[in-house]
Amino acid sequence: MKFKKHVFICTNQKPAPKKSCGEEHGLQLVEAFKQALKDRGLQIEIRAQRTGCLDACAFGPALVVYPEGTYYGNVQLSDVEEIVESHLVNDQPVERLKLPV
Amino acid sequence: MKFKKHVFICTNQKPAPKKSCGEEHGLQLVEAFKQALKDRGLQIEIRAQRTGCLDACAFGPALVVYPEGTYYGNVQLSDVEEIVESHLVNDQPVERLKLPV
Repeated sequence: MKFKKHVFICTNQKPAPKKSCGEEHGLQLVEAFKQALKDRGLQIEIRAQRTGCLDACAFGPALVVYPEGTYYGNVQLSDVEEIVESHLVNDQPVERLKLPV
Repeated sequence: MKFKKHVFICTNQKPAPKKSCGEEHGLQLVEAFKQALKDRGLQIEIRAQRTGCLDACAFGPALVVYPEGTYYGNVQLSDVEEIVESHLVNDQPVERLKLPV
């Protein structure tokens, strides 16, 4: 496994009125995750990156953490530290943000 | 786990002379994977999609299959059927295309 955890954050923008994760918000999330990992010196073993549609548009902004395949929805910038610290570092998924998939 | 297998195919294009997976080739791969899965009626349980840089630029076109985290490099359109049939359907990774990550 190249990465201990690999986080894929949707940056897909669909034309309104379709709900989608949104390029701007998605990219802000990507940058926030990258920075939080860098702050902890974890950017080599844990990767966060942008991705296309994760098939969870109605629950966006969405992301998935592998290898577990944990989907999170309605993720805000203020949630990034909690996901990093609880899930990525300590292997405790953030239940309140998990999607029932 | 929302998907039995989740295939992320890099469509990242970096300015020349940097080596990168390439948007055009990546998108052709995405379409070929989607079609191969649809042909088998597997598009609900197995997802193939575009993604950003997978940190394997020098070995592109690259993709990764989760939950295993298997990285493949130098993937050509002619390799898609083998990856789908051998790895995604029958759980036998295609050794000749695997990246040593």
